[in-house]
Formats: sequence, structure tokens, C-alpha cells
Amino acid sequence: MNAPAPLTHLVPEIHPREVPQALIDALKARFAERCSTALAVCEQHGRDESSFQAPPPAAVVFAESTADVADAVKLASQYEVPVIPFGAGSSLEGHLLAVQGGISIDVNRMNQVLSIDADDLTVTVQPGITRKQLNDAIKSTGLFFPIDPGADASIGGMCATRASGTNAVRYGTMRENVLTLEVVTAGGEVIRTGTRAKKSAAGYDLTRLFVGSEGTLGVITEITLKLYPLPEAVSAAICSFPSIEAAVRTTIQTIQLGVPIARVELIDHHTVRMVNAYAKLGLREEPMLLMEFHGSPAGVKEQAETVQEIAGEFGGQAFEWATTPEERTRLWTARHNAYFAAIQSRPGCRAISTDTCVPISRLADCLLDSVAEADASGLPYFLVGHVGDGNFHFGYLIDPDSAKERETAEELNHKLVSRALSLQGTCTGEHGVGLHKMEFLVSETGAGAVEMMRTLKRALDPKNIMNPGKIFSL
Amino acid sequence: MNAPAPLTHLVPEIHPREVPQALIDALKARFAERCSTALAVCEQHGRDESSFQAPPPAAVVFAESTADVADAVKLASQYEVPVIPFGAGSSLEGHLLAVQGGISIDVNRMNQVLSIDADDLTVTVQPGITRKQLNDAIKSTGLFFPIDPGADASIGGMCATRASGTNAVRYGTMRENVLTLEVVTAGGEVIRTGTRAKKSAAGYDLTRLFVGSEGTLGVITEITLKLYPLPEAVSAAICSFPSIEAAVRTTIQTIQLGVPIARVELIDHHTVRMVNAYAKLGLREEPMLLMEFHGSPAGVKEQAETVQEIAGEFGGQAFEWATTPEERTRLWTARHNAYFAAIQSRPGCRAISTDTCVPISRLADCLLDSVAEADASGLPYFLVGHVGDGNFHFGYLIDPDSAKERETAEELNHKLVSRALSLQGTCTGEHGVGLHKMEFLVSETGAGAVEMMRTLKRALDPKNIMNPGKIFSL
Repeated sequence: MNAPAPLTHLVPEIHPREVPQALIDALKARFAERCSTALAVCEQHGRDESSFQAPPPAAVVFAESTADVADAVKLASQYEVPVIPFGAGSSLEGHLLAVQGGISIDVNRMNQVLSIDADDLTVTVQPGITRKQLNDAIKSTGLFFPIDPGADASIGGMCATRASGTNAVRYGTMRENVLTLEVVTAGGEVIRTGTRAKKSAAGYDLTRLFVGSEGTLGVITEITLKLYPLPEAVSAAICSFPSIEAAVRTTIQTIQLGVPIARVELIDHHTVRMVNAYAKLGLREEPMLLMEFHGSPAGVKEQAETVQEIAGEFGGQAFEWATTPEERTRLWTARHNAYFAAIQSRPGCRAISTDTCVPISRLADCLLDSVAEADASGLPYFLVGHVGDGNFHFGYLIDPDSAKERETAEELNHKLVSRALSLQGTCTGEHGVGLHKMEFLVSETGAGAVEMMRTLKRALDPKNIMNPGKIFSL
Repeated sequence: MNAPAPLTHLVPEIHPREVPQALIDALKARFAERCSTALAVCEQHGRDESSFQAPPPAAVVFAESTADVADAVKLASQYEVPVIPFGAGSSLEGHLLAVQGGISIDVNRMNQVLSIDADDLTVTVQPGITRKQLNDAIKSTGLFFPIDPGADASIGGMCATRASGTNAVRYGTMRENVLTLEVVTAGGEVIRTGTRAKKSAAGYDLTRLFVGSEGTLGVITEITLKLYPLPEAVSAAICSFPSIEAAVRTTIQTIQLGVPIARVELIDHHTVRMVNAYAKLGLREEPMLLMEFHGSPAGVKEQAETVQEIAGEFGGQAFEWATTPEERTRLWTARHNAYFAAIQSRPGCRAISTDTCVPISRLADCLLDSVAEADASGLPYFLVGHVGDGNFHFGYLIDPDSAKERETAEELNHKLVSRALSLQGTCTGEHGVGLHKMEFLVSETGAGAVEMMRTLKRALDPKNIMNPGKIFSL
């Protein structure tokens, strides 16, 4: 770990390449009305939930099949024009911005469940399906897919960013839950990265090379995921704490004891207030942990008793239990809406999200000093965290027109990342690097490792057309 | 999945490159007596547990530090000479054979535990430490490292082959349990692939690119692993079945119900007989499952009751429980020695091991027909399996001097792999491709995916010096 480089880039560099009319003509010939150059369509595909802005892509292709994606990529390759895959548009890191120009490939129409193999606890889907659509589609099987980033993201996008969410503490992230992919390469070829076997030692792990590659190595067109039996018993609980520290120490001890807790989410008192206002809830406006336990009735009871005891030692208030599915859904919907609740708390604002993740023993060290810094800055913010994994998010709520506020937020983020790296953590637990964390990535892994990533990118995408300008400059 | 190519290579191609005396002189100047060219030393480093043979490497460097490895690789790179990392020598697939000549880098002296971070459930080690040495070293922490291939393999080798073993059904494989690596690249540069954070979305997953790369992309010099709290309660049991099918169907139903069983190993009646003879045990010579349950006392009881009920439905005999640690160790030692017991059952033989892994619902289809084929062939064999993962191993016990027996074994393996691939499985669950499964790999993933692997190899190792001739021809 090196000290992060000085803060030089508050806005990404934008170098659009020319998109020749001949490419647009060829795309229109191939895709007819499924290739749009309408400004509104292009603008909608040229932004995401990040605070960055760039000129929109020159065209949007609405793909309906792997062959569509392959043909669009082949044409783009022929004209050496960038290709940006587009799913739900919920990236927080500028992944969808056409910083080097190019065309967007919208995969939302590729949203089918291709095969449910309930006996093997796997499902094969197209990339445009969202996590909620997927769980609806498999409801009758008694299985579920646990990975749940805040947004109702597309499964393709979740693969591309190595997403996780509240259940990762027990079920892992996309890294652990993708079995195999079908991918369209930069040359427009279709490959498969693996099989449906649960484990494999068959050559390089291409699956995990593409998971987290942020669209820079190819377009994901089919995904086989692991599923899990719906737990026999589920119980969720809220516990309020006298301080953030007390909530964090409860979490650390829970994890260190090996309690197989399914979810343990920190919400600070600011965020509880925002969520109460947004979702008309009456939660106590104190730091809290939202928890969920999965297992057999006896197992859930054991886990809950252990955690209640730990929480009691740190001054946690009596648990409030959500026992019916409806109550649990209301609770977790509130958690998932925290981001939108925060955005609404300051009309017109944008959030600059942090995403550090540190080893669990360092969580208090990383978090508490950063809270003090954020409080001292005067900037409004929200704070939520998948604290069981050592991952948490500040969202600094800035006026997008205020350079000063943006700079303050970036300085806070910079200090937080420096702290996380010094504690052997990462600058991004689950959002990806995108445009925003390229310099942090170099600080984190060293120039040699980033140069290795560039070498891989150059080898697989010699024309640099797959979502260029993300993860590292190239 | 394509049909496997016809069986053309029973022995790997051997094309040793010249090792210039100037390189040997330079290595001797740098490493003095830690560079050996003694024939016995070179021969010992030029073979493994596979049935292949090739001329030995020209020299062996005994590395004691990352700097040693980096210097040896730099010198090898300068002379464009292959480098083969050597740990415990327990590969079953010819990974350690110098099929293109070169030098061996022995990392056995790099066997230190560098840092035990018990509060984070992680440990950082050098690559030469074996899995048993590691577990001895961390015994006082109340934590353990679960991955256990049959041999007492080195952790570096286990990373390189993406190893797993009996505990993988619950704890995953090396893929899931390596947090970060230090690696010496083909150019002799030292890089880190990640941090100690439990999850990360920071760029390409270099860690998992190296895990399973079989020494072909770089030399692993440091490894940070996940650890697990020793379970509060453990119970192990043996259950005999009237047929292999009954044992397999019990396993499938256990997994499909989501029972978090820690180990479920199939041993066929031939192998029980061999183990009885080798370890002087009195196990019933019938197909059996060896099982282990981890958790709280109540959780273990629940799991065991569920599995007993399932086994009863398939005619399983009353469980025999191993309740003391000593009894359990004796049981699992017997399982881990199955390979050696089998080898000893036919003096002078070599085993040709299969390693297919299929989705759990296909396990019976894959296994039972292959048992019938093996029985019909007349070749002695053993059969053991991590059946909870859909992974099992036939070991065909051949006279190494009998071309006919080798051919029979390869034909059986070929049919088994064809069957596994047609059932959406893999040719190798945990042993790796090495020299033995290159053609199967092409059949399994397609020429495009293998060509992508070659492209990655060429990009990271342009002189093709890192363990060349493994995984794919190059």
C-alpha cells in the first residue's frame, strides 16, 4: 500500500473519439428502429447515478439477443468505436458515461430467465434481468438469489461491477455467486467462461476475470448464478445504540465469534431521520443496526440470542423484532431506499458515495475518525454500511453547482480512502472503480498491478473499444 | 460443450529448450550452494505424482525469499529459459515436469507464517508451508484452514492448482479462500493482487487470475488466506449403503435440501478394502459415506438427524459415530490415505486419476455408468469422491510398463469426461489441467476460451518461460 496520490482529478478527462456516419448507417441497416440516435435516448444512456457528466453516446442499440450484441460489437470494432453496455443505469461511479464517445448497447430487452435448474441450485439468465425480476421469476422454486445492491440493478451490471449488498456477509458477493458467463469479446466472438459444475480447476478463471471488469473486456450476454434454499426460519431485528462506536463494536464481536448472521447493516442517526421522512416510518433517530438471521428455527434462535447478548454489553436497546414477511420487507425496503431518501432530503443535490472496505478488526478505526471529519466539514451526509463485511458508505450530499462543496466532499473521501488503505483495506468494496477511483486504485494495488491490468486489457481489446477510460486511463 | 477430441495424446509432447551454461553460472554466482545441478536433486524436482515422465530440469534453485525468486526469474528471463515452481511435489497432472526444459524453483524453505490476524480471520504465509504445517501453526488461535487435498500439499501449490478437498462442500475451494497474493511476474517484478479486505471491486480480479494458473503466469511468493473459527461442535459418521447409487442419492438429497454438511465423501467397496489393508482398519467393505457436521451442538444434531433420515430412505445402515477428536482423525486420515492405500494395493503401479465434477443433479448419471465401464474393463481401480460437490475420482491402477493398461485407463477416462461434459460438468474439479487434460479443456470450454487463455499468457509472459506447456500447448 502506497499513500494515495494528491487529489488532482475532480472530474474525469473527456476525449470523445469520432463516430463515423458509416457506422451509424451500418447499425441502422442491421438494427432498423432498434438503433436510435435520438438525443433524449442517447442522453438517457449517457448518465448514471454518479455526479459526473459527459457528452452522450452517438447511438443506442437495443439488443435482443447475443447475436445482436456480437453484430453491434463487430461493427464497432470495424470502425474502432467504443462500446458501452447499459443495464439498469444504476452505477454510482460513472461506468456508463461515454468519456471517449462511442455507442451504447442497451441489454434491457435481454431479460429472460433461460433455465432454472432448481435441483442444482442454479439459474441461467440474460444480463438485462434485474435482481428483483429474477427473484420474482424463481419464487415458486423455494430458492432465492441473495445479492442485493441498493438499486434494483441488472444482473449483467452486477457482474460487471462485482456487486454485493446486505446479504454478502453470509452469502458472498458476485465474485462467489457467478458460476459461468457467456461473453461477447472485443472482436465480436462469443465464448463461454466455464460450466455449471460447482467447482473447477479447468484453466484460467475467465469467469472471475470478467466479473468486476466493468465492461472493459467484453459484453456479458448470459449468466449462470448460484441460488440458495429460502431459509426455513428468518427473523429480522432493529437495535438502537448510544453511539456509532457501540454499534460497530457489536458488529465486530459478532463476526469474530463466527455467528453466521445473514445481514448486519449500520444506519447512522442522520440517515434514520432521512429514511423516516422518506418512507413515513417512526424509527428511533439513533445509530442502529438492522440485522437478519437465517437458518433452522433453533439455529436462528441461537444466533439471535448470541447477538442480543453482545449488543447488550455495548448498551444496545432491546431488539425490536420484525417477524412477518411484510414487516421485514418494510424494514429492508427502508434500508434499500436510504440512498434515495438521502437524495430527497436535500432537493437538487447529488451524492458523492464512498465505498471503502477494511478488515473487520480495523472497522472502528476506519469509521469513527471519518465520522468526526465529516461532522466537522458541515456537509450534509448519510452513512450506511454493510459493516459485517467491513464495508460502509458515506454519501456526501453536495450541490452539484458548488465547486467548493464538491471539493470538500472529495477531500473527505480522499482522507477516508487513505485511512482505509493504511488499514489494509480497499477503496471500493462493491461499487467498482469507474471514473472516480482510478488514482486510488494505483495507491491501493501499486503501479505494477495496475500495469498488469492494462496489459490484460490491451491483449483482449487491442483497439481499446470496450468501455474505455474506466478502471485505469488508457 | 463440444464432444471431446479423439484420443491422440497418451504422453505429453516433450520439447526441451537449451539451458545455457551462462545461466547456470549466473545462478551459481547468485545462489552458491542453493543452486544445485546434481542429477538426483534435479530428478527429484522433475517428477510428481502423475504417471508422466520427462527429462529433469537443468538446475534447482532453493529460494528463501521473494527476492530470491525474483532474481532467479530475472535471470531465467534474460536467457529465455523456463521456470517451474516446486512445492510439495504432489501434483497429479504433471505440473512439475520440465517438458520444455528449464530450471526448478523450490520454495520449500519459504514456509513461514508471516502474520496471523486472528481478529480478522486471516493468515499470511509463504508458499512452501503445507496445509498441515499451517494448521499446526494456528492451532492456538481457535481458527483453522479447511482446504484439504489428499496430499499434505504446499499452500502455494494449492493456489496454483485451485485445489479443494473434503471440506469444500461447506467452505469452498482455494478460489473462495485466497484473499490476496504476492506474485513474481514473468519479468521478475513483485506485485500484490489485492488487500486484506473481505470483499473488493477494485479492478480486475488478479488474485483469481493467478489462483488456478498452474505456475504459467508467475510465481506465488506470499498468500493471505481466510480462516474459520473451529466449530463449537463437530461430529463425524460413517454410513454403509447397499449400493453406490444409494449413497449417491443420499448425497444429492442432502445437498438439495440445503443441509450445511461440512464433509460428505463417497468411498466405494474396493477402496474400503484397500484402506482396511493399508491402515489396519475394520470398516465394512461396502460403499460408504464419510460425513462430518460442523456447528453449534443443536445445529449439528439437527443436521445429523436430517441426513440420517435421508440415508434411511435409501437403505443406509445405522450410522457409526466418531465422537472424539482421535476417532475423527483416524477416520479422515484413512480417507486422505486412500490414494496411497490404493497404490500399495498393487505394488509398482501408478494411478491415472480422473477428476470430473458435475452439477449435483447429474451426479448419479455421471457416476453409475462409469462404474459399470470400469468394472467391465477388468482394470483395478479405486473410487473416492467429494460427492457433495459433484466431484469424484477414479484411480485406475496401471502397470506403468503396460501400454495396453494405460490405453484402457485413458479410454475409460475419455468416456467419463465425455459423459461429464455432456452433463454440463468439468473435466477437472480440483487437480488442474497440467499435461493431461489439455484436449479435454478445449472440448469443455471451446477453442475460443482456450485461445483467450493463450492470449492472456502471451501478454503476461511474452517469452513463454513460466511453466510452459501446461494447460494448453504453447
